[in-house]
Amino acid sequence: MSAIGATVWAIAEGYIPGHSTGDGPALESHETACLLNTGDTPAQVRITLYFKDRAPAGPYRVAVKPRRTLHLRFNDLKDPEPVPRDTDYASVIESDVPIVVQHTRLDSRQPALALLSTVAFPAAP
Amino acid sequence: MSAIGATVWAIAEGYIPGHSTGDGPALESHETACLLNTGDTPAQVRITLYFKDRAPAGPYRVAVKPRRTLHLRFNDLKDPEPVPRDTDYASVIESDVPIVVQHTRLDSRQPALALLSTVAFPAAP
Amino acid sequence: MSAIGATVWAIAEGYIPGHSTGDGPALESHETACLLNTGDTPAQVRITLYFKDRAPAGPYRVAVKPRRTLHLRFNDLKDPEPVPRDTDYASVIESDVPIVVQHTRLDSRQPALALLSTVAFPAAP
Amino acid sequence: MSAIGATVWAIAEGYIPGHSTGDGPALESHETACLLNTGDTPAQVRITLYFKDRAPAGPYRVAVKPRRTLHLRFNDLKDPEPVPRDTDYASVIESDVPIVVQHTRLDSRQPALALLSTVAFPAAP
Repeated sequence: MSAIGATVWAIAEGYIPGHSTGDGPALESHETACLLNTGDTPAQVRITLYFKDRAPAGPYRVAVKPRRTLHLRFNDLKDPEPVPRDTDYASVIESDVPIVVQHTRLDSRQPALALLSTVAFPAAP
Repeated sequence: MSAIGATVWAIAEGYIPGHSTGDGPALESHETACLLNTGDTPAQVRITLYFKDRAPAGPYRVAVKPRRTLHLRFNDLKDPEPVPRDTDYASVIESDVPIVVQHTRLDSRQPALALLSTVAFPAAP
Repeated sequence: MSAIGATVWAIAEGYIPGHSTGDGPALESHETACLLNTGDTPAQVRITLYFKDRAPAGPYRVAVKPRRTLHLRFNDLKDPEPVPRDTDYASVIESDVPIVVQHTRLDSRQPALALLSTVAFPAAP
Repeated sequence: MSAIGATVWAIAEGYIPGHSTGDGPALESHETACLLNTGDTPAQVRITLYFKDRAPAGPYRVAVKPRRTLHLRFNDLKDPEPVPRDTDYASVIESDVPIVVQHTRLDSRQPALALLSTVAFPAAP
């Protein structure tokens, strides 16, 4: 099918808890931007992070292959700089082709994980 | 009332945890696409699953009767192939008449369940 | 301010867990439709419930006063019939003036509650 | 980049649990409105709270600097009055420039926190 979604998405919530109680990466506290590219061409994606009291970070660049999904952990972003833990942030995700973006957090600070998720806000067609 | 909603929906998040701590199917870790057909004719629904590093799976076909809701567990999809556990995926849901779609996960890997839910992204009227 | 929102909303997810581990009504497993009426006139609201394999129930009727919010528990609906527990359902909420609707579940079946929430789907201006 | 989002947002759900089991402010039960201002000018924000059976409270006033995010805890609102605990409320958030708003609750009443989050409802461009 053709590429569906939007080319600019915003996630106003962002917070990676600094510790975890689970075992292994699956249960580590993390935040994810789930990116879906249903189209026939690769999606070139730029992510910018916003903070409370410092200049934005980025752009971080990732690609999503045609007809694939990439569940990108903010924990794994390294270039140009890692995402600070226990720190409020927000993100804007821009793509050269339409994609769909959903935001999820797994929080395992206490010995029973918690989850949140929402479709991100589509800010431009 | 008439059929409300949209004919194409996307859920960029998808992940069925591979184990559970609860008893019985109600507390088994699962993901659901809740489909609501308020109209007077059956909704013929096609679901396509997207992955990180393999070709899409599907289409899976289900029908939602007029004036009924179907809470479809991705865990139960079998044809043309089951949904792999502990694996990132995404989904696109297409219907021949407007429906409403909401995405929910129950995660009972740790001994206290967690929930997430969001209205899916409506991609075409 | 004037009335903001939409006059038809849909919530495709719906499920009231049949038991609870918390004490008192605050921690009882429940589902809520949060209704916000920012306008200057009362909102006359009709709720219809949809099921998997029986005819819809309702309409249930509630009013939301001007400049007030009503967090309506589906658990408390009685007329024309109570909402069955441990049963999949969905809902459509119609108002004679624009309102805003958000859907929340608190699940305390296991000894640590879980929450989900999403803005409902606005189906008509 | 330019300012993205909307100038009026509504959050129909609102409830600050009156107690907590975690240690420190991070794990205290709280509700947050995450505000993202991607534009080049400060956002002057007015928040009005709605209740079930009393007149609205506010406006509360906050500013979000250019290219910054502010994760505003409803718990911290003091002027013109604090937000009552264990009480249903809703909120409308108005800004003089477009912003993006996401709503989150952390509930730690039981000894394992729960989370919910959703993008708020954009009510005016």
